Amino acid sequence: MAKVYVLRLGHRIFRDQRITTHCALVARAFGADGIFYSGQKDVSLENSVRKVCKKFGGNFEIKHVSNWKSLLKEWKSKGKIAHLTMYGLPLEKQVKKVAKKYDLMVIIGGEKVPPEVYQLSDWNISVTNQPHSEVAALALFLDRYFEGKELHKKFRDAKVFIIPQERGKKVMQTDKK
Amino acid sequence: MAKVYVLRLGHRIFRDQRITTHCALVARAFGADGIFYSGQKDVSLENSVRKVCKKFGGNFEIKHVSNWKSLLKEWKSKGKIAHLTMYGLPLEKQVKKVAKKYDLMVIIGGEKVPPEVYQLSDWNISVTNQPHSEVAALALFLDRYFEGKELHKKFRDAKVFIIPQERGKKVMQTDKK
Repeated sequence: MAKVYVLRLGHRIFRDQRITTHCALVARAFGADGIFYSGQKDVSLENSVRKVCKKFGGNFEIKHVSNWKSLLKEWKSKGKIAHLTMYGLPLEKQVKKVAKKYDLMVIIGGEKVPPEVYQLSDWNISVTNQPHSEVAALALFLDRYFEGKELHKKFRDAKVFIIPQERGKKVMQTDKK
Repeated sequence: MAKVYVLRLGHRIFRDQRITTHCALVARAFGADGIFYSGQKDVSLENSVRKVCKKFGGNFEIKHVSNWKSLLKEWKSKGKIAHLTMYGLPLEKQVKKVAKKYDLMVIIGGEKVPPEVYQLSDWNISVTNQPHSEVAALALFLDRYFEGKELHKKFRDAKVFIIPQERGKKVMQTDKK
């Protein structure tokens, strides 16, 4: 099956740590295979994401890239690129054009997205043309891409499972080390 | 038509400003009528959300509440409450139970959600049982609640419109003051 990765552009350690963490956890929970991030390398961000992966399972990866242009140019030789931006064409029509036989890179921006990103992308896609959140845009895009099936995704080698409850919390732990 | 409001619990000025801003903008873009937030009153948060509303239109409201328990108890006399939590019952079945004839309060938590929230809520709903983001959970919930129609919502009295483009940015300004 084709892989789906996310590229988060322009991470800044202090200002973006929580938003980028949310982006990474959404990428994982909604079925992506990993997240790359450019901007400042942030060991604490990586550790907190890896800690969640170890506890809740799966093979999700997080990796800093120092040169996002090289990454995208290399990616284009084998895969496709979708850039989420409030300026792009509407999600619902565009997501149907995203061919699932190719690996996919989903780009989410920071404050200012360089024009090359629009040019290098196969699709510039808007999740509404209103300002809101790259976290929400990523969630909606992955939801439509995976057609809602991501909501039932199972994660291998989880040490902790949540058992859905009408009220309160129920957590099961396995004895896997 | 019934109203939909969001209640964001436990806002902390420094740590949560960007996440709460994203929650508010997602609430607005995905069709809610307003957001209440408890915790620390944050004038800068309110101003930045109101600035977006003024520019992009609509009647979205943001309001600090000093006593969320009173708000919820009063709310229950006329409306319903859905609490988004990774410990709750799965979104897709639960959202169908949310009666649309009543005003709805959608609660999203901070770090620690008090047990009363689970008790006062009519539905405790999980958007996956994985840890991710209240921003994404809110977006997915509103998307399912409004059945995808929120993606086409128009905002009255907008001063600025984004015209969807295949590449690049196109912004139209009206001369409304």
